[in-house]
Amino acid sequence: MSEFDLIDLIRARCPIDRADVRLGIGDDAAILAPPPGHELVVTTDTLIEGVHFPASTGARDLGWKALAVNLSDLAAMGATPAWALLALTLPQADRAFVADFADGFAELAAQHRVALVGGDTTSGPLGVTVVVHGFVPPERALRRDGARVGDQVFVTGVIGDAAGGLACLERRSPYLLEASADARAALIERLERPTPRIAAGIALRDGATACIDVSDGLLADLGHIAERSGVGIELDAWKLPTSSALLATFEESERLVLQAGGGDDYELAFTAPLDRATSIERDLARVGCGATRIGSVVAGRGVRLLDAGGGEIVLARGGWNHFA
Amino acid sequence: MSEFDLIDLIRARCPIDRADVRLGIGDDAAILAPPPGHELVVTTDTLIEGVHFPASTGARDLGWKALAVNLSDLAAMGATPAWALLALTLPQADRAFVADFADGFAELAAQHRVALVGGDTTSGPLGVTVVVHGFVPPERALRRDGARVGDQVFVTGVIGDAAGGLACLERRSPYLLEASADARAALIERLERPTPRIAAGIALRDGATACIDVSDGLLADLGHIAERSGVGIELDAWKLPTSSALLATFEESERLVLQAGGGDDYELAFTAPLDRATSIERDLARVGCGATRIGSVVAGRGVRLLDAGGGEIVLARGGWNHFA
Repeated sequence: MSEFDLIDLIRARCPIDRADVRLGIGDDAAILAPPPGHELVVTTDTLIEGVHFPASTGARDLGWKALAVNLSDLAAMGATPAWALLALTLPQADRAFVADFADGFAELAAQHRVALVGGDTTSGPLGVTVVVHGFVPPERALRRDGARVGDQVFVTGVIGDAAGGLACLERRSPYLLEASADARAALIERLERPTPRIAAGIALRDGATACIDVSDGLLADLGHIAERSGVGIELDAWKLPTSSALLATFEESERLVLQAGGGDDYELAFTAPLDRATSIERDLARVGCGATRIGSVVAGRGVRLLDAGGGEIVLARGGWNHFA
Repeated sequence: MSEFDLIDLIRARCPIDRADVRLGIGDDAAILAPPPGHELVVTTDTLIEGVHFPASTGARDLGWKALAVNLSDLAAMGATPAWALLALTLPQADRAFVADFADGFAELAAQHRVALVGGDTTSGPLGVTVVVHGFVPPERALRRDGARVGDQVFVTGVIGDAAGGLACLERRSPYLLEASADARAALIERLERPTPRIAAGIALRDGATACIDVSDGLLADLGHIAERSGVGIELDAWKLPTSSALLATFEESERLVLQAGGGDDYELAFTAPLDRATSIERDLARVGCGATRIGSVVAGRGVRLLDAGGGEIVLARGGWNHFA
């Protein structure tokens, strides 16, 4: 099976239904028509086997996740997704693997009307690089550098599940409780099938001052907002929103490590003035997304995790460093 | 050295000087302002160590080439380059390697005013995926599907040098002549520092009916034009333009294999009606690029290589298949 057969296989499973795609897969490049009066938002993320996902990950889940982690970056900018490119490197031309991968990719792409418009298929160690493009009205993108002292810090959904799922898969945590199979499956599902918060990001364009997606870990990612905005952030550890599956599966001390230090949740962490909290929560509720106030923006630098008495909690490990 | 230090290192070496970049490296995504009234042309290519380049390739050459092969796809569309993203996967966080890589990338980027606006740096087996964006006036992009029976077939520059350079590096050809070190160095330079034919592609927007860059091999790449255009192509083997370095280094029979079957030259192969040949040659000469008429578009399908008597030449190996 040649490279071109694989490309045909992928193309057949990822139909394009967008008038702004003038020429899709099959030429030297794609030809696209950006909407007038909008800015283009572009990002790329790579997933490497053994680094970003375990070798046990199914091809279909991998296809979904490779797109999801990229769409999550568009969500963090408040952008509406449009086009994707896929660079897939495979040890061999495995038809079944590629078909399943494309199906997982296409399943999520269809939810957000994302057209796969190009890519590259090469031989080598298993890895995926996806590029996504989205649109925002001029100067309306959510950035990392807009947090102001006095703003409140929020996070969508619940956090720590994906890191909990990874610990379940690896059975490496000494703190693993005898949880039900359902609870563990729910955590692993969050790891392998993350939900990019696209509608929430768009809803936040009106109210948030800064936004980031939680990919490397809550402390690490909020650290980027703090650094780029020139502020400090204080988080109340006991406010971090927790799923019942995580509660059932890990002891409290380990849970906090997973929630503050673990990555891969793809929730949105954002800042906003307190007087916008009600309208933001209403806007998010309209798109089916909850949010929790977890801390505040202060003068200074860095991110501190506080206990109920105001004392700082220092975790054993921080955010994810790809070269650690 | 962390991922973020590496990103800072790359960013410092690839300065951005474009007003249409509203936000570059350092947020969840880049924010870009496409020019009104143009189409966007987007492509991506991956280079994997041991597949697309030998382990001996210098970091600086690799940085250049990773961008060059992508810009070549823009050239084949007649697009003006603008923005790039870089997904770099490295076995370890090697500061010197990344600095050299970024310098090679930046050297070529500066020639074409390409801004590096985003990317990803991950740990894993050495590989590079680059994405480039360019612009064309509406419906003016060069495509693969416009060749018509009776058109002539042309190629820019000389071909076969890059494949010759690879054979020199690998010392694998039994046909290698005792050429001068200069000749061999010239071939290896073509392999490691290809020149994307950007100005030529733009000049061809007025006259060419179809265009592709010679990356997988002349026969294979013209085969894509033939297939997409629903035509056949006949090439006159004795007309293929040949460098003096290639002449000095390989016997005739091997030379033809390198020129027709070898890839990585990144010249442009294109079709055009005969009555446009003079104006096309003049337009190309203005941008310092020569072109040679090497064959014609005929009814039928596929690409046939003919000798001076009109007989078909069948080569021992065809174009490059990444999974061969």
